[in-house]
Amino acid sequence: MNGFSELITSKDNPAVKLVKKLIRSKKERAARKEFVLEGVRLVMDAIGTGADIRRIFVTQSALEKYAGKLPQGNVTLISDKIGEIISDTESTQGIFAVCGFVSESGVLPELRKNGKYAVLSGLQDPGNAGMIIRTADALGLDGVIFSGSCDIYNPKTVRSTMGSLFRVPVYSDISGDDVFTALEKAGLSSFAAVVSTDAQDVKTVDFSEGGAVFIGNEGNGLATETVERCNNSITIRMNGNIESLNAAMAAGIIMWELTR
Amino acid sequence: MNGFSELITSKDNPAVKLVKKLIRSKKERAARKEFVLEGVRLVMDAIGTGADIRRIFVTQSALEKYAGKLPQGNVTLISDKIGEIISDTESTQGIFAVCGFVSESGVLPELRKNGKYAVLSGLQDPGNAGMIIRTADALGLDGVIFSGSCDIYNPKTVRSTMGSLFRVPVYSDISGDDVFTALEKAGLSSFAAVVSTDAQDVKTVDFSEGGAVFIGNEGNGLATETVERCNNSITIRMNGNIESLNAAMAAGIIMWELTR
Repeated sequence: MNGFSELITSKDNPAVKLVKKLIRSKKERAARKEFVLEGVRLVMDAIGTGADIRRIFVTQSALEKYAGKLPQGNVTLISDKIGEIISDTESTQGIFAVCGFVSESGVLPELRKNGKYAVLSGLQDPGNAGMIIRTADALGLDGVIFSGSCDIYNPKTVRSTMGSLFRVPVYSDISGDDVFTALEKAGLSSFAAVVSTDAQDVKTVDFSEGGAVFIGNEGNGLATETVERCNNSITIRMNGNIESLNAAMAAGIIMWELTR
Repeated sequence: MNGFSELITSKDNPAVKLVKKLIRSKKERAARKEFVLEGVRLVMDAIGTGADIRRIFVTQSALEKYAGKLPQGNVTLISDKIGEIISDTESTQGIFAVCGFVSESGVLPELRKNGKYAVLSGLQDPGNAGMIIRTADALGLDGVIFSGSCDIYNPKTVRSTMGSLFRVPVYSDISGDDVFTALEKAGLSSFAAVVSTDAQDVKTVDFSEGGAVFIGNEGNGLATETVERCNNSITIRMNGNIESLNAAMAAGIIMWELTR
């Protein structure tokens, strides 16, 4: 017990209540510009990439198990019971971190000339969003822009990014207008991913000068006005049944072609 | 109530007990060569593709909701309570079907000359397996072969295939020897997907004569002897962090290149 000032055992403790709120409420996260990481790997990834970790909570069991791996600093000890109460997972590892947002919500910085971006426009499933961020990291995209999509700080999204949230630039809550303005300013083309025989086969698109691929909602695709505003419409032409392609997998294949 | 002979309300009813067992026990599924579909879409997909549906169970609520859509035939009415007891999901739609295996376990038929196959060798995550089957269906592969991998009839795998299990040929529990024998007989090349700078970049592989791509375990990849037995080793070369690529996404990109 290397110098912990306290052991929290009450679910009414203000710090515990705050963590629970940050996990469950998007509004609370937006107000405080903070979110919660759960699990050893995610917390270690965050620390390793220099994320803005503000406070760490560790259960007594986790302390015994991961003693050597735990970071120094603002660490608070909690009872195992409190760990279970806070947790968003079925069986918790008992380690949590409160972390500042990875970028300022609603603010899109200048984009890179010849950069390669994915724009999620209306995508709603947290698991798909996380998988797309993870794949963008793997493929070395310059950024993933969330526009009218799910909350990137939802615990399920954060978990399914497997730490990629800290390795690839991710921008949340960006308006459609801001996305198109930033693309034009950087001289980047916009490509709407659609299911249509009229659209250009993604295999034949010239991505050598970069660009942004727009991925839409799981059920309804992109809004018509978004498609019309993009420079090009692209599609995945296949031998099989296109409706069988999951949104994250379709996005992965398109990002693969973007960086191929 | 169009002619249902009975309404099952007891969890001790033999039919209810059997369905529960089929959902929870791989052994029971293997012994009876049957598995359970849950949910309207899956059951309808199965019916639409002529799957071997043996019995359907519908709750009273589901009957009211989906009356027009329900198939004729061997349909048994169950109470809503029993629906919840049987269900493997958090909120059930109250429709279940007992279905015969899609192919005989352990038996690999003759493969197609110039055919395109995915071999899952040691893959363990049911969600990944389902996503791979779904993507293979989308891309029009000739089959997905499970060898030393998870059970394709696990409810989570079945669910995540979104019905593709009935649209693409899937072979379960095939021995490594049988896979290589069948490939040789059909004159098909085998490609081991590995993470190695020595392996051939998947983008440069000539798949014009078809072949089988081998996908390994999520954590450990393919067994060394499997890699050695394959004709070629292939890899996904990227700008980013290859460890960030989820197994299903990696398989998806490789299958995309196989059929590109």
